[in-house]
Amino acid sequence: MAALSTTLPLNRDSVFWAHKVVKNHVHRTPAVTNQTLSELASTPRAVEDLEGTRFAGRTPAKPTLRLWFKCENLQRIGAFKVRGAFYALHKLTEEPGWLEGGGKEKGVVTHSSGNHAQALALAARENGIKAHIVMPEISIPAKINATKGYGANVVFSGSTSVEREAVTEKVIAETGARLVPPYDHPDIMLGQGTLGLELQDQVESSIASSVNSAGQTLRGVYEASANKKKGNVQGLDAIITPCGGGGMLSGVALSCEGTGIRVFGAEPSFQGADDAKRGYESGERVPTVSSLTVADGLRTPLGVHPWSVIYERRLVSGMFSVTDEEILKAMRLVYERMKLVVEPSACVPLAVALFDEDFRALAEKEGGVEGWDLGLVFSGGNVAVDSLGKLLAGEK
Amino acid sequence: MAALSTTLPLNRDSVFWAHKVVKNHVHRTPAVTNQTLSELASTPRAVEDLEGTRFAGRTPAKPTLRLWFKCENLQRIGAFKVRGAFYALHKLTEEPGWLEGGGKEKGVVTHSSGNHAQALALAARENGIKAHIVMPEISIPAKINATKGYGANVVFSGSTSVEREAVTEKVIAETGARLVPPYDHPDIMLGQGTLGLELQDQVESSIASSVNSAGQTLRGVYEASANKKKGNVQGLDAIITPCGGGGMLSGVALSCEGTGIRVFGAEPSFQGADDAKRGYESGERVPTVSSLTVADGLRTPLGVHPWSVIYERRLVSGMFSVTDEEILKAMRLVYERMKLVVEPSACVPLAVALFDEDFRALAEKEGGVEGWDLGLVFSGGNVAVDSLGKLLAGEK
Repeated sequence: MAALSTTLPLNRDSVFWAHKVVKNHVHRTPAVTNQTLSELASTPRAVEDLEGTRFAGRTPAKPTLRLWFKCENLQRIGAFKVRGAFYALHKLTEEPGWLEGGGKEKGVVTHSSGNHAQALALAARENGIKAHIVMPEISIPAKINATKGYGANVVFSGSTSVEREAVTEKVIAETGARLVPPYDHPDIMLGQGTLGLELQDQVESSIASSVNSAGQTLRGVYEASANKKKGNVQGLDAIITPCGGGGMLSGVALSCEGTGIRVFGAEPSFQGADDAKRGYESGERVPTVSSLTVADGLRTPLGVHPWSVIYERRLVSGMFSVTDEEILKAMRLVYERMKLVVEPSACVPLAVALFDEDFRALAEKEGGVEGWDLGLVFSGGNVAVDSLGKLLAGEK
Repeated sequence: MAALSTTLPLNRDSVFWAHKVVKNHVHRTPAVTNQTLSELASTPRAVEDLEGTRFAGRTPAKPTLRLWFKCENLQRIGAFKVRGAFYALHKLTEEPGWLEGGGKEKGVVTHSSGNHAQALALAARENGIKAHIVMPEISIPAKINATKGYGANVVFSGSTSVEREAVTEKVIAETGARLVPPYDHPDIMLGQGTLGLELQDQVESSIASSVNSAGQTLRGVYEASANKKKGNVQGLDAIITPCGGGGMLSGVALSCEGTGIRVFGAEPSFQGADDAKRGYESGERVPTVSSLTVADGLRTPLGVHPWSVIYERRLVSGMFSVTDEEILKAMRLVYERMKLVVEPSACVPLAVALFDEDFRALAEKEGGVEGWDLGLVFSGGNVAVDSLGKLLAGEK
């Protein structure tokens, strides 16, 4: 990464600057609507459905929610991670002395078996920079091949974080490569936040023109979006994003600063993967997570830089967590009703909107009769299709 | 259906008329591009890959193909069938005497366990018309529930066509309902053809503006679309659609009449499901099909009315058929590379573009150095997600 001293201040203007850079390299992914899921989200759950859950005995909330899905599963490499990667490498190439010091040849390095690996490999190739990706030997061949396919040098390591970091250090010592972490850096946060700006703009334009960004006319429940009287601008009232390391959540929160749009984070609760929620509520960041939640992109602890935005500056209004069963239920609905391929992590915000009575009660209270236009981020679509049936069966 | 005497002539103007009707009821589904699949389609296959196939010993063709996918999997009810259903019911309501004779109460009837059942149920509900849907008792509960969910009266029958038709006749005798067949009627053909008009318009607009209908900038191979010198208009050179009963294929062919855009049909070859191809080549329509091809939407024989357009008027330039293995290979690419949920039948045109050397040689010869902008219709996305893994494993 570029030196911290070169990063722009963490505010909305800086996200606009980051967008000027990344928009030339990434897709402006569509923000789509869905009548059926919005109706479902706006229907109170049955009292029986709450039995046996953490909401047993509650009166089901009655929010009115019009859902807007930002389809980063349709992004290059199939996930939002390219935004941060392209912006981080741009900043690196601008760092005084980096290019002259042979930076492109020395390259960049990261350890990841997931979307960040492919994102960095792609961004490095398009910037003419060498990329070293440290991956566990046990990574599935499809991911290894995809990363190699973007021209990266794949270096194998053991699977523990200690083993991975040791190999990464070795690569740095031997090549002089610069480390590009997956989320805990201001440049990454600003890069990921660009999807928040696009979503805001797309929802405003869609409501103004009555046509969504996939060219479909707004009908049914969405007709109410244009009649909403609150504030001066028609558009989003709130956004929920997945939260793993917090790079995207903090970036999206920055993209909404001063707009009145409330931003929430969504996590899996399985085996303590709700570290950000626990930290947010206790006031102390939880530095480690060890969970095998089905939302495999969200098994990481919140980073220090994201924490400063999410908690210390309170740019995130609340954290919610859902069970793996709820995540898979939401995922099935996306496949069956939206015909989109999404990975489990991408479905966590929808699970919150549909199944978390705390969130739903809040949305009912604050949205009132007019309801909320609610943005949900589909963060990625990289899932092994062969195992989809088995994965979804885990729901029962 | 409305009486045949009331149908418009089978030509392009009539498809425009049908579009005026259906566009108020259906989505203008996006026409999207895909860089990776276009590059793959434009790469000659390896000689070894042709070994053991019907193309063994051939020199692999070298077409240049820029693919444009019409996403009817994102259509209402998840398939293009709503277009024909809405248009057919509109024509019925306009038939002299139908309304006065209690037509809405007598209703409409069809026998189908697939997309046509849901399409007719939805279109009937929105027109205030009763719908009776005859379904085999062995239909999967999800399909039965979906059809009931649209307010239709589901009537069960045995699974053979004789049993289904007997029950349908009984419903007609008891209720006076009008039969709405799934494909073999001019109104259905004109309705389905409306997707062809949209696709033509979307590709032209995308090339003119350099932005596709999902808002993504045209890059890479698609930059050549704007530089093509043939003809007066930038846009599609050819379209391939799936062919089951032929309603959509004949409708799309009508939508292209006089434009110079060539239209091709794609079928599965398994167990003789390539009836339309065999009929087209022998000059005699094949009236029955009994195949368990994985492309379950295409197990039907070509209808009489579609045949007149496809073969007798030669508005279709050729028929191609692919193996179930090729269909599933194409399907896997769509899930992995496009992140879209599609049913097997929807992937048959892509399989032709990628794997049929006869088609590829033709496209090389006729497209020349500039290549073809080729439209492919994703006809639907209704697939049981639980069985996806097993389905795709059938590939091996």
